[in-house]
Order: sequence, then structure tokens, then C-alpha cells
Amino acid sequence: MKFAIILSGCGVFDGSEIHEATMTMLAVVRNGGVYDIFAPDVKQHHVINHLTGETMKESRNVLVESARIARGKISPLSSYNAGDFDAIIFPGGFGVAKNLCTYAFEGTDCDVDSVVEKVIRESHDAGKPIGALCIAPVLITRILGAVNVTIGSDKATAETIEQMGGIHTGASHGEVIIDRKNRVVTNPCYMIDGTIDDIATGADNVVKALIEMISL
Amino acid sequence: MKFAIILSGCGVFDGSEIHEATMTMLAVVRNGGVYDIFAPDVKQHHVINHLTGETMKESRNVLVESARIARGKISPLSSYNAGDFDAIIFPGGFGVAKNLCTYAFEGTDCDVDSVVEKVIRESHDAGKPIGALCIAPVLITRILGAVNVTIGSDKATAETIEQMGGIHTGASHGEVIIDRKNRVVTNPCYMIDGTIDDIATGADNVVKALIEMISL
Repeated sequence: MKFAIILSGCGVFDGSEIHEATMTMLAVVRNGGVYDIFAPDVKQHHVINHLTGETMKESRNVLVESARIARGKISPLSSYNAGDFDAIIFPGGFGVAKNLCTYAFEGTDCDVDSVVEKVIRESHDAGKPIGALCIAPVLITRILGAVNVTIGSDKATAETIEQMGGIHTGASHGEVIIDRKNRVVTNPCYMIDGTIDDIATGADNVVKALIEMISL
Repeated sequence: MKFAIILSGCGVFDGSEIHEATMTMLAVVRNGGVYDIFAPDVKQHHVINHLTGETMKESRNVLVESARIARGKISPLSSYNAGDFDAIIFPGGFGVAKNLCTYAFEGTDCDVDSVVEKVIRESHDAGKPIGALCIAPVLITRILGAVNVTIGSDKATAETIEQMGGIHTGASHGEVIIDRKNRVVTNPCYMIDGTIDDIATGADNVVKALIEMISL
């Protein structure tokens, strides 16, 4: 089973959440799969100093920074071909809501990067199961509309999912929400405070549900 | 059981190896421990584009970049107090050999950052078990001298360990080398090609060996 993992930078406040990204990779391998990693070749919305929370006067590229998590083994998202994979997974982090789409700034009216939109539509149209962690279900809902997903228990975010046409189902650590019709599997990860163990369990359960879905 | 995890940046080629750092955190929590994260507040030696391998015309700070892996929950290494912890662990990555010491450039004659040296000596003198992954055993050997460690099977690196007064013992994925006298536990991690699962197993076995040592 071959998974595509889509990153959005390197660091929770302006890119991919690192624990979610690495625990997704671990979950794929521990469940007998392999993965390729992709990220869009675009400028990050901004660079956040993760020590102070302040915006830095720097410019970084999403693909280049994602390559840190991938140890250099990463491809531009534009080269993704749904036919090459059994499933696709989006770990979370603010990068999803800042670099893959503009949800962090524009909420329900957000724009989605055109390559990201193409990748989600192409995967969905090909019947490939889609996994999304943390805030990433917002991105999937913005594209697919009437999907049943979870971002945990945050009411404001859940409301925006409903406003975008989705159905939000509450979930806690480790629990996955499975939309069998749309073939979408989601888990809250760090949308709920937790330990890195909770994240590992959440990612593992998402991958297990995707694997079950692949064979159906 | 409380562990100190010492980072050296964020990314294998100029900082902490991200998988080793996160799998160390996971191992601590899954074995019932808690951790605090530290990094020296110094400039990175350089910034490597992890997509191309080229040096970038940028300047980054080790503490600030390490904060990406730590999700902001990190302290300057100068505030580390050995008495507050049961054990200390150094994940690998070139950051250990470029930012914590100059081994990557000067080999056996390398200098060690003064705060890093103080932290290793203080921990050792207090009898605290020290864990080191990947290339980090080189740093421990440069400070402590006659320790028995592993960096896997790389002959050139093993020779430099012997030249610095250490004893090198070969090891493969998952195997830990335990120096009971000096209370040092090491594992090769990405010094040997492997999957993220191998790294998780290596980090887990190091943490298990440290926990056993803590109680002795």
C-alpha cells in the first residue's frame, strides 16, 4: 500500500505540525505501507518565530522547508498523480490553513491553492481514500463540501465546517471519523491538547482506517 | 521519570534530525516519562536547503529553529540543571556535529560549545544516565573520553571515536550499546540507512535502557 503524504512547511505555527507529519510516516510504515512526500512549491504565507510567536522578517518556501521533515526525499505537489497511490494523507499544522489555503485569514470564504485543489479533486474522483489530521479537514471540506469530518471539539471551527457544507462530528484523541461514502477519514490530533503519544495513536488509527477502506 | 531532550536545530542537514527528535519524545511518553526540551541559544553554523543540499544565504538561531520541533515549549540550554532530571538525551542530526560542536568540520580536534560541555559534564558528574543517538555519541566521547559507544558501522567515524579515547562497538538498528560504568546508552539511528520505524525502535530501546539505569 502506497501513501502520499502532503506537507505544508515545517513547524506548527507556519507549516506542517512536525509531530503529526512524523507520526503519520511512522503509522504508514508500521502498518506495512510505504509513502512518498509532496509539498507545493510556493512561498510560505509568513515565517513565525516558534519561540516567541512573533512574525519574522524572512521569506521561506513551503517545499524547501517541508524537505526538512522529509530528509530531502520530497517532490513538488504538481507532480502528484492519484493513480500512483492507494491513499493520500494531509497532516495538520497552521501551514494547512495558511499555505495550502487561506482559511486562517479568510475562514469559510477561503481560497485554496490551485495545485492543492486539483490534487484533492483528482484523488476523490479516482476513489482514493483521503486522510486528514488536525485542521486539515477544513481544507477537505472547502473542496468536497458535504463530507462528514472531525476537528475534535472546537465549536467555532466546527461551525465553519457546517457553513462550508460539511457535517462535523465531535471526536476525542484516537477516535477517527469515517465518511465511507466520500472515503474521508479524519482525527483531531493537536486540535485537542495532548501528548505526542495521542498524536501517534490518532495517526495510526487514521492509517488503519484508510487501509481498511483501500481494500473495500 | 523526567528526561531532558537536547536539540540542535530543525532538520537533518543543519540541525536536529526531526524523526530522531520526535521518536525520542514519543519513546519517553510511551515508557511513562515526561520531558523538557532545551537547545543552545546560538547561531546555526549555516542553513542548508534540504531540497537541493545547497547552503542558503540565511542566518538562523538554533534555539528558535529547535522550537519548531518543540511546538514552542523549549528553554535555553543555559537554564538546564542536571538535578531537575533523571536522564538526558541527545538526538542526532548534523546539528550535533555543526552547532553543538565542530566535529563535522574539525573531526577529533573539534571544539564543543561551552554550554553543551558544561551540561554533559554536570550530568555525568551527577550520575545521570546520558542517551545519544546517531552521530551524538561523538559529542559525548569528545567530552567524556573513555566511553563505550556506537555510531553503527561507519568505519571512519568509529575510528575518530577511538582516536578521541573512546571505545566503539558496532551495532545495527534497534541495538543499544550500554556503558554501565559511565552510564551512557547509544544507538545508531540514521547513521545506518533505515525507515522511520527503525528510528522509533532505536529511540524506544535507548529510553528503556536509560529507565533501567535510572533505577540502579
